[in-house]
Amino acid sequence: MTGLNSLVEAFKQTKFQIAGNGKRNMQVLKEAFDQVDGQLESDIYGNGKVIEAFQEKMATYLGKESAVFFPSGTMAQQIALRIWCDEKGIKRVAYHPLSHLEIHEEDGLKELHHIETLLLGEETGLIGLEDILNLHQEIACLLLELPQREIGGQLPDYKTLVEISEYCKKKGIRLHLDGARLFEILPFYKKSAAEICSLFDSVYISFYKGIGGLAGAILAGGKDFTQQSKVWKRRHGGDLISLYPYILSADYYFDKRISKMNHYFEEAIELAALFNSCTSIQTKPSVPVSNMFHVHIVRSKEQVQQILIEIYEQTGIGMTSYLNESNETTCHFEVSIGDQYESIPKVKLQEVFHLLQAKLT
Amino acid sequence: MTGLNSLVEAFKQTKFQIAGNGKRNMQVLKEAFDQVDGQLESDIYGNGKVIEAFQEKMATYLGKESAVFFPSGTMAQQIALRIWCDEKGIKRVAYHPLSHLEIHEEDGLKELHHIETLLLGEETGLIGLEDILNLHQEIACLLLELPQREIGGQLPDYKTLVEISEYCKKKGIRLHLDGARLFEILPFYKKSAAEICSLFDSVYISFYKGIGGLAGAILAGGKDFTQQSKVWKRRHGGDLISLYPYILSADYYFDKRISKMNHYFEEAIELAALFNSCTSIQTKPSVPVSNMFHVHIVRSKEQVQQILIEIYEQTGIGMTSYLNESNETTCHFEVSIGDQYESIPKVKLQEVFHLLQAKLT
Repeated sequence: MTGLNSLVEAFKQTKFQIAGNGKRNMQVLKEAFDQVDGQLESDIYGNGKVIEAFQEKMATYLGKESAVFFPSGTMAQQIALRIWCDEKGIKRVAYHPLSHLEIHEEDGLKELHHIETLLLGEETGLIGLEDILNLHQEIACLLLELPQREIGGQLPDYKTLVEISEYCKKKGIRLHLDGARLFEILPFYKKSAAEICSLFDSVYISFYKGIGGLAGAILAGGKDFTQQSKVWKRRHGGDLISLYPYILSADYYFDKRISKMNHYFEEAIELAALFNSCTSIQTKPSVPVSNMFHVHIVRSKEQVQQILIEIYEQTGIGMTSYLNESNETTCHFEVSIGDQYESIPKVKLQEVFHLLQAKLT
Repeated sequence: MTGLNSLVEAFKQTKFQIAGNGKRNMQVLKEAFDQVDGQLESDIYGNGKVIEAFQEKMATYLGKESAVFFPSGTMAQQIALRIWCDEKGIKRVAYHPLSHLEIHEEDGLKELHHIETLLLGEETGLIGLEDILNLHQEIACLLLELPQREIGGQLPDYKTLVEISEYCKKKGIRLHLDGARLFEILPFYKKSAAEICSLFDSVYISFYKGIGGLAGAILAGGKDFTQQSKVWKRRHGGDLISLYPYILSADYYFDKRISKMNHYFEEAIELAALFNSCTSIQTKPSVPVSNMFHVHIVRSKEQVQQILIEIYEQTGIGMTSYLNESNETTCHFEVSIGDQYESIPKVKLQEVFHLLQAKLT
């Protein structure tokens, strides 16, 4: 039997990888800074041309009055919810059971901000309007994550979004967008970022998913909101003397990749269809609505590991470096399309899926 | 009359500056990354060779069991105090009235961690052993800042430090070191960092003061302490997917400047003596105990601005870009010696102080 480490190792040896924008190595920073003038002055504690210009660029792109650069989305989103809770005098918010805040942040929202959370909808599905209509406790803010990452990147239809937005406005509930992958969903909705964001009071976006930057986030909204967010940013320890390594790389890779989102989306649909053509494999969603999807395989993790390692070694194409165990008979992994997919020769890709199908039969 | 902006502008035009390591511009990052291998892998959420190696290096340097890299000292220190408060079950700490936590962090410690603070000692002086002996409320932790930056960088003698440390140990009070400028005080104490740190339960150090890096901090202590600090780092939103721009630049500038601290210290003593030779000027401390001191001038801010601008224009040497008003008749500024001081020709420096003396007489 071959262990998990062997899958990682076999993956690292592959020449091509189906997902992502490439290795997270120092070259990502070096490429972004190659064309930067050494004499350009650093941002200083949230001020200066470097940070202000990018914040303005993103505020315009998102159609919001103002935007603030943060080192992380974890920090930005907790702060957004805190501001809306303070505004309403109610320390309660609602979000999906698999929200980043609920499962990846060590309960920062509860431990630092003492905000109570209501989990809306089922783990396996999306939050619907009826979930919000049936709320029996008052909340200050509803957080929607588009796409819902932990279920493969699913999206409500646009009509539902508008209905949720209108209902929240009527009820005095602030609507916050977890837009970690906002760029990636615009081709599906056929809307601009500003059109989507107009449905929300506040918006967070990330620069190291589809954009492929180093790290960093933007929080956008009205001027009073972003002004308050700067005070909380300092309290959290996020108001660094220099954030420019993240800002300039975010700006560089935004310009490099923002026009490629439709391309990634189409490639995700193509690749998901290839997976779904194999016995015992199903993607979620079955037809992607962004650049991402999850691949579920009805085989034990050990069996799939062995199969994948053989395919990587035979074809030089890596599909994933890890597998999550759904249960004893099923495992899954995530795919997010970036620059790397298009560099794989189509014949090589056909070979991979012929092999996969053969080994699963 | 010439306004404040003119002082900044005149300062920017100078060829030499008496303080600091040079401009905070992109070149600082570019220099550090010039020799970095593009294929080196990024740290990932606190793991990976890049971050682990530097943490180990700093733990060894500080003589502590373990160390964690943080994006900021604000984050690191709040977390240190929180851990010690939780350990003791008492949400109360003590520090100097001009501690960074009290005056520069928008009350993060109180707003996020609900920790009560006792201010020990006078604003104009240092915390003494008697201040701690006279505490009439129980505290979980005492924070000492060495040197006490806001009063010009003053230090207690080593005997007092040892007495405070022994008393705290006896009383079950955790002792935390705000060592933002720890490297800079070692020449005065003639001790290693590890010797100083052995008096403290936990230590924070910074990489953008004397070291001249981009940003970033290390928090060090026992393994259980640093393990807990990682959980809080994630809660604060400081567990970034990639912190390497700060880590590798901190490492680069640490190696470049750590051996220069004695040099900076001696230059600070020399420069302070030049200031003190002028009518109406007094430095605090009168003889520096690190690379830093404050310059107090018994003239109105407007008068001093005018004098400085004239000197900058005549000599091409800048002393400060700002002035703080102490009261109607006195103003002051801070000097921290770095690489730039030694590049100023001694005759030029003499000229500056002759002019300054002449204009103040």
